[in-house]
Amino acid sequence: MNKRLLNVAKQLKPELFHTYINKDFSSELKVGEAFVIDFVTHYTGFLSLDLDFEGSPVDAPILLRIKFCEHKDEINEKTEEYHGWISKSWIQEELIHLDILPTTLKLKRRYAFRYVKVELVASSNKYRVILKGAHIDALSSNNVRVNYVGNNSLEKNIDKVALLTLHECMQYEFEDGPKRDRRLWLGDLRLQALTNYYTYKNYDLVKRCLYLFAGVTDKDGRVPACVFTSPKVTGDDTFMFDYSLLYISTLNDYFKHTNDLKTVIDLLPIATKQIELAQNNFTDDIVNDSSVLGWCFLDWNLRLNKQCGAQGVYLVALKDLIELYKATNKDTKLLIDDYKKKLEASKHFFDEKLGVYVSGKDRQISLASNVWMILGNDFSLEKNQQIIHNLKSLSFEEIVTPYMYHYYIEALIKCGLKEEARSTMDEYWGAMANDGADTFYELFNPNNKDESPYGGKAVLSYCHAWSCTPSYLLRKYFIGDNKND
Amino acid sequence: MNKRLLNVAKQLKPELFHTYINKDFSSELKVGEAFVIDFVTHYTGFLSLDLDFEGSPVDAPILLRIKFCEHKDEINEKTEEYHGWISKSWIQEELIHLDILPTTLKLKRRYAFRYVKVELVASSNKYRVILKGAHIDALSSNNVRVNYVGNNSLEKNIDKVALLTLHECMQYEFEDGPKRDRRLWLGDLRLQALTNYYTYKNYDLVKRCLYLFAGVTDKDGRVPACVFTSPKVTGDDTFMFDYSLLYISTLNDYFKHTNDLKTVIDLLPIATKQIELAQNNFTDDIVNDSSVLGWCFLDWNLRLNKQCGAQGVYLVALKDLIELYKATNKDTKLLIDDYKKKLEASKHFFDEKLGVYVSGKDRQISLASNVWMILGNDFSLEKNQQIIHNLKSLSFEEIVTPYMYHYYIEALIKCGLKEEARSTMDEYWGAMANDGADTFYELFNPNNKDESPYGGKAVLSYCHAWSCTPSYLLRKYFIGDNKND
Repeated sequence: MNKRLLNVAKQLKPELFHTYINKDFSSELKVGEAFVIDFVTHYTGFLSLDLDFEGSPVDAPILLRIKFCEHKDEINEKTEEYHGWISKSWIQEELIHLDILPTTLKLKRRYAFRYVKVELVASSNKYRVILKGAHIDALSSNNVRVNYVGNNSLEKNIDKVALLTLHECMQYEFEDGPKRDRRLWLGDLRLQALTNYYTYKNYDLVKRCLYLFAGVTDKDGRVPACVFTSPKVTGDDTFMFDYSLLYISTLNDYFKHTNDLKTVIDLLPIATKQIELAQNNFTDDIVNDSSVLGWCFLDWNLRLNKQCGAQGVYLVALKDLIELYKATNKDTKLLIDDYKKKLEASKHFFDEKLGVYVSGKDRQISLASNVWMILGNDFSLEKNQQIIHNLKSLSFEEIVTPYMYHYYIEALIKCGLKEEARSTMDEYWGAMANDGADTFYELFNPNNKDESPYGGKAVLSYCHAWSCTPSYLLRKYFIGDNKND
Repeated sequence: MNKRLLNVAKQLKPELFHTYINKDFSSELKVGEAFVIDFVTHYTGFLSLDLDFEGSPVDAPILLRIKFCEHKDEINEKTEEYHGWISKSWIQEELIHLDILPTTLKLKRRYAFRYVKVELVASSNKYRVILKGAHIDALSSNNVRVNYVGNNSLEKNIDKVALLTLHECMQYEFEDGPKRDRRLWLGDLRLQALTNYYTYKNYDLVKRCLYLFAGVTDKDGRVPACVFTSPKVTGDDTFMFDYSLLYISTLNDYFKHTNDLKTVIDLLPIATKQIELAQNNFTDDIVNDSSVLGWCFLDWNLRLNKQCGAQGVYLVALKDLIELYKATNKDTKLLIDDYKKKLEASKHFFDEKLGVYVSGKDRQISLASNVWMILGNDFSLEKNQQIIHNLKSLSFEEIVTPYMYHYYIEALIKCGLKEEARSTMDEYWGAMANDGADTFYELFNPNNKDESPYGGKAVLSYCHAWSCTPSYLLRKYFIGDNKND
């Protein structure tokens, strides 16, 4: 814990802006029946319900089951059937007794939702329970409104949904998802920050998050994968090879959009440290295989071998560190030498016969490996394009997260395949938009809509920060590209 | 609603006294396991729990199921199997999410309990949940302590339990039970008030309750069976033939113990009105049978025919009204004439061959009918004793509530069967005491421990005011009666 760094973060803690949404009803709730309130779009905040009664005096408490749903599919999902490996305590469902009517029930927890399903589990038959009103005190640290962009209505809708996704995840920190885990993760932060630079431009919130991570490195100086801020700021004891390295890229992105040299100088030792620590995971300049490496996230495809992708992430981060060194007039020679050595060693992953990168002892072919190596290497546009071309003729492990799709699109752009990048974005995020998304999901596999890395869908987050990048991609690369429309 | 009368009640609203009970632990809660806190005796009040964690940061909320049990049998009772006719919302069980540890969970509802069962339903496997402390803010409007009486250790224990029962039910009003229904019922009030005169002597609380009932009579002037005081004072729309009439007896008891003539003069018109209104339920001075009469409570034996018992209750109430008229120098002639007529007509219920009272067209023999007629008639001690004697040789409907047992014991005493009265009390309440009761139950059938009038035991109240009368019976009739010991 570095108090000075955390104090900088503390000074940057944003105020939250409130939006109040009110709905009036006069709807009887019947025992065993459910009443679904549709707030039309996604909100993150506090709910209150006005409840009254008709008939005889309230001679017994009422028992309500209140379920909060981000996605329409959650409304009738049987949450009691979830037995996955992350806690079912994430399911946004409460059982509440009320002793006195009329009353306004103010729920104390914050929820993320568009739909509220109110079920009267029990009451007496002497009176009728009437739902009179529902109110949201919705919160975000963003209060900027941005015009939607896009070359057609689909893209404009994608932008709208992506912008709301980012807005909802902007709280006291950039949260990964307001339903779950409701906290700052590094992989999400990088993509939120990128999108933020092109939209809401809340530079202080990015700076705060960079300082939060900087303040909670472990005893070796390693940046954890996430930070808890309540009840007190604490670094997680989860570390991911890629996330720690992407701290560097996040800092470099920040610098490019702010020219905030003071912050870069302050945080550069921590960025440098991530490259230094990563060395322990290399043997002859080749990153260790998954079993030795520890957790490297890349994507929620659980079959993925991470070795090659990890090598790619390292190269990406190292390039960003070199840029930061140049910006601060620091000697880059050692870093450039390291880059050359690691890139040369990466040939280990390149299957000359297939013309694609492969990963692990089983030489797994995956999109993730090739994307990260394309982003990390210094090949010609044509050579990288050929890799993509070769890959498509093969059977390979897919990706399932908007997070990894973002890097796939960046890789396509780096290969000069801008049109394919755009159509990939339109197809992938467009499928979610056409699924009725108000915000983009944590996980979306167009080929398997029931996919979940957690052993069940009930805990999935349907408003997840790492899926907000279309608003960045559109503004940076695609606006005005109308030739296909 | 009579505002003047309710204002008198309001002026008499008592302060509640607080008792704080603290328990310290350092016990790990494990998912799927339950931890039972035994507070050694019964309390009515607010619970808070101190919860902490060990291990990695709390990366998911915890979900707790907290169950409050008055009786040890409730701890492992499967509450989800209760599907009875009164609301399962009475079951004292909560499901609560906590987002942040350490924390002190302060439950907002008031509960009645000795045991608290804390089950960790869900958490993450990255940290351990530790229960550190449990605290009760226990409430009662009684702060008087009374020495236990009794001729032996059983009776002293019965007195202790009965005194606690009354203490726990003394809140802003005399409640019937702090678990359920948590409000002022007339049948309970009468017995609580009687016991209170011999023990805690809180005359103002009785006066307050008499005025509450007086202030909420219906448009015809009828006293309802119970009064709600939150969120505002409201008379129930449940009326019971016997409970309305027992308002008179409750007022007469109050006068005998306070000599508060002013209150009697103020409330006498309301008392008188109950006798007047009851006339509508008589045909040729015989009370209508159950189907026409409406609800007359008497006891929770659901097979009971109430006609004869209702006639007895009327006679009891009328005798009390005559006493109140005498005390206020009002002319009693009409009332005495009415008493004679109704008593004469009561021969209709007396089976000369069997020598007992019978009830309804099926001529049901029950203890309840005979008890109320013995209490209501003016027969000689010997004649009434013979009725009890005759009854015992027959098969008859039993009684199942401490409420009705109280009147049975009063009837035995009226017959001069004091020793039998005492042994009946010792046996009935002693069986509950030997069952481990800290407070006496709403319902206890020594012949069927699973009896419930509600279709299931989960909603039963194990601290119920109408069972507190041993503390009255002991002090009024039995103390010093040691000849059997």
